Amino acid sequence: MHEFDLITALLADEPPLPDWVRTGPGDDAAVLCPASGSEWVLSTDTLVEGRHFPAGMPPDLLGWRALAVNLSDLAAMGAKPSGFLVALVAPALDERWCRGFSAGLRAAAGDSGARLVGGNLARGPLAVTVTVTGTVPAGTALLRSGARPGDVLFVSGRIGAAVAALRELEAGPEVLAGLTLATVPEALRAYLLPQARIGLGLRLRGRASACIDVSDGLLADLGHICEASAVAAEVELEAVPIAPGVAAETALSGGDDYELLFTLPEATDAEPLRADDVPLQRIGRIVSGTGLRLLDAEGRDVAIGARGWSHFQ
Amino acid sequence: MHEFDLITALLADEPPLPDWVRTGPGDDAAVLCPASGSEWVLSTDTLVEGRHFPAGMPPDLLGWRALAVNLSDLAAMGAKPSGFLVALVAPALDERWCRGFSAGLRAAAGDSGARLVGGNLARGPLAVTVTVTGTVPAGTALLRSGARPGDVLFVSGRIGAAVAALRELEAGPEVLAGLTLATVPEALRAYLLPQARIGLGLRLRGRASACIDVSDGLLADLGHICEASAVAAEVELEAVPIAPGVAAETALSGGDDYELLFTLPEATDAEPLRADDVPLQRIGRIVSGTGLRLLDAEGRDVAIGARGWSHFQ
Repeated sequence: MHEFDLITALLADEPPLPDWVRTGPGDDAAVLCPASGSEWVLSTDTLVEGRHFPAGMPPDLLGWRALAVNLSDLAAMGAKPSGFLVALVAPALDERWCRGFSAGLRAAAGDSGARLVGGNLARGPLAVTVTVTGTVPAGTALLRSGARPGDVLFVSGRIGAAVAALRELEAGPEVLAGLTLATVPEALRAYLLPQARIGLGLRLRGRASACIDVSDGLLADLGHICEASAVAAEVELEAVPIAPGVAAETALSGGDDYELLFTLPEATDAEPLRADDVPLQRIGRIVSGTGLRLLDAEGRDVAIGARGWSHFQ
Repeated sequence: MHEFDLITALLADEPPLPDWVRTGPGDDAAVLCPASGSEWVLSTDTLVEGRHFPAGMPPDLLGWRALAVNLSDLAAMGAKPSGFLVALVAPALDERWCRGFSAGLRAAAGDSGARLVGGNLARGPLAVTVTVTGTVPAGTALLRSGARPGDVLFVSGRIGAAVAALRELEAGPEVLAGLTLATVPEALRAYLLPQARIGLGLRLRGRASACIDVSDGLLADLGHICEASAVAAEVELEAVPIAPGVAAETALSGGDDYELLFTLPEATDAEPLRADDVPLQRIGRIVSGTGLRLLDAEGRDVAIGARGWSHFQ
């Protein structure tokens, strides 16, 4: 199939672009008009077949995942999504695959504000790189570097369900066969349909002192906050909302959760942050020093092994 | 080598970021502060090993190419480069490779204004996706869609040298062995060190009615202008600045030139567009209708075969 016909298939079901997209797909570049007073937030993330998603992933689930993990980075910055670009590398493509993939992108975008504004197609081993853009009022982006001793540490949702789902998927490609966005079983949802916490990120602006999304694993990502903020952290193991049936060590180092991990100055009222669909749990606090401590209910240190994963370890 | 050490190596020689980069690499996303009144221009392009560059490409040459082909898209929009993000997929990386690659990125950025603001590393078959951002004063982006009958057609530089260089490279990986940015022989420069025509793109703002960069091949890219503008074009074959020793058919359909192909309303003075280092050549005109005609010196139709390439043909 010709590249330009594939692009047509990818764009076939897109609704009209909003006014702030001056030029969408089809020119050398997209042209976007930022709201005055806003800063632009940009992130990019690649998913490679066999490493960041299983072979045989249905195209709509791949589209969802490729966008959702990028939107999660915007959520962690407190940004409102605006545009995204998709650089798709695939060994072969047909119209059906393209339509499924773009349906997945649209479903993940939902009502977040994210619109497909450009992209690129290339032939090669299957991999998807999405670049997302979002906006924040000037000076309000949530950084990793603002945590201070005395701050309290929160996490949204539950930790560990994604790594448990991933282990089910590793049983073989038949687990994925025939799945669509509408038919993903509950046990696989945490991995296959990650939810970027955009709304929570917006509520955290002006309140959180630091924020990150849990992609490498809760302890590894907490380590990123501590390093960027030059502080240490204490986590109360029994307070961590671990998914049922998942071992604590697995959950804390598993990654792929795409929940938000954030710190609040001690006097901050957490109530305005809550929404029915996103549980929040206080799991520890920031202290001076370096490193992480895991504490049991009596305040004693708990030893734990792995601390998240690296793409190149 | 650990992912975070590789990122350190990639960023080791970067000069301090300018003020308009509020947050650079190292957080969940980059934060950029646009100049008021500007629109944002965004483009993304992937290079896959063995398809968009030969296996064995030295890392500095890969870095140059990956950024330059993206900057060329900004040039075609008349945009001034601002930031770029690099999503690098590689089977293995070491510090030396990372430093070479980032040196190539910096060299390609030159004084264009483009600064590395973020990225992503993943393990997999070698491929680089760069996403570039640039700015234009509101409403001044050069689109493909503005060509009108009566406009004259220009191209910068020379056409066909890149495809000739690519054929030399296809002789085998030994042609590339040991090459660096500083030692690329003249015969390979057009392919290995493409020059994004940023300055020309800026001069074209407010003057050109349509513009595109020649990446798929001059005739294919002219076809894109004609289709987007709902016009036809006549090209005078003898006026096309074809590189010495390259057959016209090869040059016109070869691609990878990264020159600018643009149209000017007939009364436009082309003199202010000229600069010493970028030859400009009038090669034809826009007419009403559809399709392309190639004309010889006597105004007779010339038949020509291939019309550029598609990534999925």
